[in-house]
Parts: sequence; C-alpha cells; structure tokens
Amino acid sequence: MLESAEVGHKVAKATYAREETKLREALLNAQYEIAEAGRGPILVLISGLEGGGRGETANKLNEWMDPRFIRTSAFGPGAPEEEARPLAWRYWRALPPRGRIGIFMNAWYRQLVNAHVRHEVTDMQFDARLQEVRQYEQMLTDEGIVLLKFWVHLSRPAQKQRLHELESSRKTRWRVTAIDKAALKHYNKFHDKWEQMLRETSIASAPWYVVEGADPNYRNLTVGKILLEAMGKVNAGAKPAPRAVVAPPPSVIGNVALIRRLDLTQKLDDDRYERELAKWQARLAELTQRKRFQERSLVLAFEGSDAAGKGGAIRRVATSLDARQYVIVPVASPSQEELAQPFLWRFWRQIPARGGIAIFDRTWYGRVLVERVEGYCSVPDWMRAYDEINQFEEQLVRAGAIVCKFWLQISKAEQLKRFEARQKTAYKRFKITRDDWRNRKKWAGYEQAVADMVDRTSTELAPWTLVEAEDKNFARVKIVKTIATQLERALD
Amino acid sequence: MLESAEVGHKVAKATYAREETKLREALLNAQYEIAEAGRGPILVLISGLEGGGRGETANKLNEWMDPRFIRTSAFGPGAPEEEARPLAWRYWRALPPRGRIGIFMNAWYRQLVNAHVRHEVTDMQFDARLQEVRQYEQMLTDEGIVLLKFWVHLSRPAQKQRLHELESSRKTRWRVTAIDKAALKHYNKFHDKWEQMLRETSIASAPWYVVEGADPNYRNLTVGKILLEAMGKVNAGAKPAPRAVVAPPPSVIGNVALIRRLDLTQKLDDDRYERELAKWQARLAELTQRKRFQERSLVLAFEGSDAAGKGGAIRRVATSLDARQYVIVPVASPSQEELAQPFLWRFWRQIPARGGIAIFDRTWYGRVLVERVEGYCSVPDWMRAYDEINQFEEQLVRAGAIVCKFWLQISKAEQLKRFEARQKTAYKRFKITRDDWRNRKKWAGYEQAVADMVDRTSTELAPWTLVEAEDKNFARVKIVKTIATQLERALD
Repeated sequence: MLESAEVGHKVAKATYAREETKLREALLNAQYEIAEAGRGPILVLISGLEGGGRGETANKLNEWMDPRFIRTSAFGPGAPEEEARPLAWRYWRALPPRGRIGIFMNAWYRQLVNAHVRHEVTDMQFDARLQEVRQYEQMLTDEGIVLLKFWVHLSRPAQKQRLHELESSRKTRWRVTAIDKAALKHYNKFHDKWEQMLRETSIASAPWYVVEGADPNYRNLTVGKILLEAMGKVNAGAKPAPRAVVAPPPSVIGNVALIRRLDLTQKLDDDRYERELAKWQARLAELTQRKRFQERSLVLAFEGSDAAGKGGAIRRVATSLDARQYVIVPVASPSQEELAQPFLWRFWRQIPARGGIAIFDRTWYGRVLVERVEGYCSVPDWMRAYDEINQFEEQLVRAGAIVCKFWLQISKAEQLKRFEARQKTAYKRFKITRDDWRNRKKWAGYEQAVADMVDRTSTELAPWTLVEAEDKNFARVKIVKTIATQLERALD
Repeated sequence: MLESAEVGHKVAKATYAREETKLREALLNAQYEIAEAGRGPILVLISGLEGGGRGETANKLNEWMDPRFIRTSAFGPGAPEEEARPLAWRYWRALPPRGRIGIFMNAWYRQLVNAHVRHEVTDMQFDARLQEVRQYEQMLTDEGIVLLKFWVHLSRPAQKQRLHELESSRKTRWRVTAIDKAALKHYNKFHDKWEQMLRETSIASAPWYVVEGADPNYRNLTVGKILLEAMGKVNAGAKPAPRAVVAPPPSVIGNVALIRRLDLTQKLDDDRYERELAKWQARLAELTQRKRFQERSLVLAFEGSDAAGKGGAIRRVATSLDARQYVIVPVASPSQEELAQPFLWRFWRQIPARGGIAIFDRTWYGRVLVERVEGYCSVPDWMRAYDEINQFEEQLVRAGAIVCKFWLQISKAEQLKRFEARQKTAYKRFKITRDDWRNRKKWAGYEQAVADMVDRTSTELAPWTLVEAEDKNFARVKIVKTIATQLERALD
C-alpha cells in the first residue's frame, strides 16, 4: 500500500498554477458552506515521515482556506497540565466544534510509531493499541466528525535526501531526531510496520490516504483535492459511513432482577448512622490527604432514580474532603458549546488532574438512561455508547484515576412519598418538575435501562455499586464506606 | 481596624449549635434562590494569617451550603500553563458564572503581602499594586460580581500558639513557611502593612471584613452571617454599589478628524504590492521563528468598518506564520457560558501562552464600538470599559505579549461599492446582513466612537495603528509591515 507513494509523483509548475487557483476557490466555498450550516466538523490528521512536508501541507491548507475557521494543533511532548491527565485529554480539548476544521499533526500516531521503533512495546501491545485507535476513531466518526487521515510518505532515497537537507541547515537541524535516523536506517523493517499500522487503522469511515511527499506540488494538490471531495460530500448531506450495523446485543434475560431484588428494607438507626458515617468520613479524609493520593485522582459518578437522594449523599462525601481539592459537576442539559461536540466531550473537560477529585451529579450514563428511554438519541447511538463509556473509563483508570460509580435505587412507593413531600414544602429547591412525573411513568423502561447499563459497564476497573437508598442513612454510609474502601485498596 | 479582631471573641457551644442550625437553613435557601435565578455570582475571597483557619472556613461554607454550586480555588505557585500567561489569567479562569458561588483562597493578596514581607517591592511599588487591585476589584463588582472579602485575623499571642500547634504535628508542619515565621517575628511591623493593605483595598463595593480566627465557632458564624446578609441583598434585587458616578470625560473636540483626515487615496500597484508583501511576510516569518520569540507572545487585534477587509488582511498575516503557532479567534455574539461572565472573560480565555500568537477578528473593543453606538450596554458600562481595556492590555504586555491593534478605515462610498458587489456575488460568505446596513446608517456615531477609542486606548504599550484600507494592497502591506516592525523592535 505504500509502494505507489514511492514512485516519484510530480506535478508540473504550469499545471499546478492552473489547478491551484480552481482548487482554492472551491475549497474556500466548501469551507464557508460548512461553517455557515454548522456541518461536520472536519478533522484532518496529517502524519507520516519526517521530511515529507507535513507542516508545509498544514500551512498550505490554512493559506488556501479561511484560517479563521481552522485550528491547527501540534502535539509535542505533553505539557504538564496534560501529563497530569489521561493521554486522550489533549485530543479532546483540541477537537473542532461543528462548522470548523481541525488539523491535528501526528496526534495519536506519533506515539504509536515511536513506541514501536524504540522497542517500548511488544508486537502484541502494538496490536492492542491499534485496536484502541480504531475504536477511538470509530467513535469520533460515529459522533459525526469527518475524519481525514493523510500519511505523507517518502521513498527511502527521497527521505535520505530530505533528512540530509534538513541536517545541513542550522535552522532545521533540530527537526531531525534520533528516531528519524533510526527509521531511515531500518527503513525496510519499519516499512512493514507502517503498512500494518495504516492497514489496521483504515476503517471504512476513516481510511488512510497515503500521499507521496517528495514533490510539494503533487502533495498539496492531492491533499487539497481529497479534502475538497470530502467537504463536498458533507455539504451534499452525506453522513460518515456508519459502523457495520449489528443487532443490539439482547439484554440478559431477566436482568432487571438485579434492581428489583435489591433489599430496600435495609436501614440504619440514627445513632449507628452518626457513628458509622463519622468513622468512614474520617477514613476518607485521611486517605485523600495521603501523599500517595497526589499521584492518583478520584472520579465519582452518581446516578439514581429521581428523588433517590443523590444530592444528600454527595454532600456527605464532600464534607470529608478539602474544598480546595474537589469539584462537583452538576450535569444538566448541554450548553451550545457542548452540543457542537461528541457527547463525551463535556465530561472530558471536567476530568481532574492528579491529586484532584471530580464528583459528577449525573453523568455520561445519561446517554444510556434518559436519552435511551425517552428516545432522545437513536438506538445505534446509545447502543454504541456502552463500549465508548467503557473505553473512556479505562483511559481514566489507566492514567491513575479511581472510578466509583453509584446507582441509588428507591421503590416506586417511596419515590411517590418523596415527590409529595417535596410538593408540600415551600422551598423552591424541592420543586418537582413535569419531567419527574413523566420519568416516573416510564419506571419499567428505566429499570431495564439500568439493568442493561450495569450488565454492560460494570467492569473490574470501574465497577458499579448498587445502593439501596430507601433509607437515607443506610445509603449514605454505604456510599462513603465504598469510596473509602476502594480508595484504600488502590493506595495500598 | 485590626485591633477589634484581637480581643478574643468567642461563641459558646450551645449558642453556636442553636445559631448554626438557623444559619445553615437560611444560607441554603438563599443559595438555591441565587442558583435558580442565575443571580450574582458571589465571589468569596478568604485571606488572612496562617493558622487563622481560612481553609476550615471554606470547608464549613461548603458543608453548610450545597457544594454542587460552589467552586473553591486555591492559588499556589503557578502551574506551568499559568506561568506562561499573565498572572491574572488564573483568576479569570476560576471566576464563578452567574448563579454560582466561588471561593478564592488568598488569590491576589498572597502575592501582595509576601512580596512586601520579602522586601521584593518598594513602598511605592506596593502602593501601585494596591491601586491595581482596587481597579481590578472595582471592575469585577461593576460587572455584577458580588465580592466578599474576609481577612481572618489573629492576635500575636494567638498566632504564636497556632503556629506552634501546627509545627508540633507532622501532618501540618509543612503549612508553616518561612514567611509565616517572619510575619510572626515582625508582627508589629507587618501589622501596619496589613492595615494599610486592608484600608486601601476596601472599596465601597467590596469592603474587607476582618474576622478574628482564634475561635472557630465565632469565625464561622461571623463569616456565615455576613455571607447570608449579602446573599439576601442579592436576592432582594440589590446591585453592588456602583462606582462613584463621574461625568463621562468629553470627547476631545474634533477628534473625529483623526479618522476623517486619513489619506484614503494611498495605493500600491500590484507589482509593488507583491514585492513588498513578500518582503514583510518573510520578515514576519523569520521573527516568529526566532528562539527569543518563545519567551514572548503576539496578540493581534483587528477592528474596522464593515467590509473594510479585515478577513483578507488576517489571511495575509496568517500565511507568514506556522499554522501550529497561531490561533485565529473570530468574535461573534457571546455564547451562554460567556454571557454569564464579565465581558473580558471570553478574551482572557483565548490569551496565548508564551511562544503563541492569537489573532482576534473583532475584539474586546466591541464594548466601546457596536455596544456603545447601538446602545447594547449602559453609558457607565462602556465608559468604564476604556480603563478596563487599558489594564487588560497592560497585563498582557507586562507578561511579555506584543500587542498590535489595527483599525481599518474605508470611505462611505467605498463601503457601498463593496456591499453592492457582495450582494451580486453568488457566494454565501459574502452575504450582507441587515446589521451591516443598519450600522452604515450610524456612520457618524461609529466615527465618533472610533475616535474616542483611539484617544483613550492608544497607549505606549499597546498603540493603535490606523489603516487606510480603501486600497486593499496598501492596507495589507501596512499591516504586515507594522507587525513585523513592532515585533522586531520588541525582540531586539
């Protein structure tokens, strides 16, 4: 697949001049249409060999189009605020919103190739990473991002010459790294690896385009034309190729028993409650003050039936923590900025740095709960969310986060009692909205959604804790205790 | 002013228990009302002596109220992404939006006191900084932020005892710094400085509340009650005390001549244009690639009449730059998130780090141009904006930014010609909106606004460049040349 980009493609100057003018005009028009209609977004990923002209290509695209609606991001060695969070955080931060074009230089592929060149990963690990990249890109395109990947390639002699040129000038010498030299030396060996990588990460919705880099005219025109074609399709209303349609895996038969069989009669009298709560709060306080926690982070996810007592539970957790250390994120309907991005974007924004704690009052699980039950998103959209969420949480855990997820369950009768009590109080904060009554009517639908959610996303790395919340005392102690216990296990 | 907080205020346990319950309930209700109506925001600043219980106070406020709508921020030594930008950037990032409560620990006062204790600043510099703080806080309160400042104080014996206690425990020893010890040793000397600082930064809209910290019950109740009173006022519809009303300084007589006398006949023929543009673009490219530029940043602000050619000029600038280095910020109407913040907030968000370039296509000057002329904000609001903007730019420059501001001027006749040409073309991007025609009718109003803007905000640190834009060639070369020249001067 690379050979055809090693034959020495060239475009003559006169041809280039003629074609460039047309292409430029067309690109600009397509770009404005996308911007105006808020389509896309378009994400152009440029990777490939050192000396192939990746940066020049990005500059050319900015020159041809209106750079006001393009953002180009290079991802060098992580900045400290990035190092303190999962690797993917920096990419999420740089994603273009609808209507815009993002250009990512190398992005996740640099690490991938370099790690392999440096023998930091085994072949099996390399394969595993390729799978992760596939899944990540699949998610991006499923979320409506038009992903165009360009691999700027050079033949061995061409690369040799380019590296030589770069090294001869004082201004560009720094660009040639030891890895580039190793790659040239073992060009043939790496050739296979590049091919494997390109092959395995070429998915239907985001294939690689290999472009020979030796002749700038050829390279720029080729990239520009492919981009123009893609933008034309977007403007013609085409959607990215959807993921191969699979029948949604059926729910495990009778899995709602998970929820229905919870023993909601469990109680704690006030005396024991005070004692136990104080004990576990003290434990939690001590653990989060430990030096070792500075290398970790804590992500707490709270979901539950309406009026199940999430707010009260969260306050009992927060009380044990230093206010400077945590952030509580109440999740309501997304803002305009958030709606222009993939659904996980607004949660990635809030991911704590090392040493930090984020408490989510409702979470990314809204996708498979309210959005599923109320039909706010399509069936394929919520079906794929389970996988996407598992990957998201896996990335958090791998970066050192401890992830605790709580589902607070009450009975239908208890909920009615709490609704009625709230309606009688004068406090506005206890207002019951129409949404609450509407959700209540779909009780069975929510039960099924919760059971499926737990079945599909309770992982070893980020398990769900089901909380019998009929008695508030019992629920609060269980929650604080669970966090303290999981934290203790993780820190020891 | 501090003596009354050194007398040993105490609240008995029984009294405390009784009052706490009432206070807590009232605080919570007031908080929900603020959250629901999107009032405020409330910014609580807690500073004072080490050992006085500042952190404990913040924790208590979080415990009393609903922590989901509070965000507590500590500002330690700057994180690297903060160090790469003006000092104020971190405070802007942490500002609470409307409806929320922010708690800032020490914030800008820590630096102020410490610098003085370390003899890093002269008395005169200290005075100057106090004035800056006054202005900054005045701006915050003018923008609708309810700013409550608590100085937690201790008498000398009380502080001595507290520091001793902190030092005796391994867990808290690290909290006592050399500066704290120096402050205790020279308590009487610093006493005067604290008083001076508190006195000079107590403005009508944000006075200091000095609270004795020795008895936690007294301290917490006092802070809580003052906060409750302030929230009650907010909910009763009170606005922060406005800045002493001054008659707006009149425009300099006949200053519109600045604009009207621009020689719009200046032209460059295409040949000279190509040559000159290429020359200055190359210079600009070379300058931004210099190593020394990595320690600076570049902020470019573009304003101009409609159809004056801002977009085209910006593209000529961007072409000389590496796409990975710059960000273009098109400024349109603010998003929901931005509307919940002071007007400068959305520009602070986009301030480049060292080595970066931000190009603003329309800017913070919208406040004194379109918002003034169209009456989108009150007269006092745009009148105070000149000062606020000057301070903003001064902060950028002091942090190493080179700030270039361009006003592109065309004649009324040329504008009409361009409007008509645009209406004839098929491209949507050249759409003329009703706003454009409306703005055109207020030509004289805009002229006056531009002249006032230049008079009041063209400073040595961040001068305006008026660009005769009737001829696009002439305008583009002038702009690129000006940037290159200013950059060269700054880097040499």
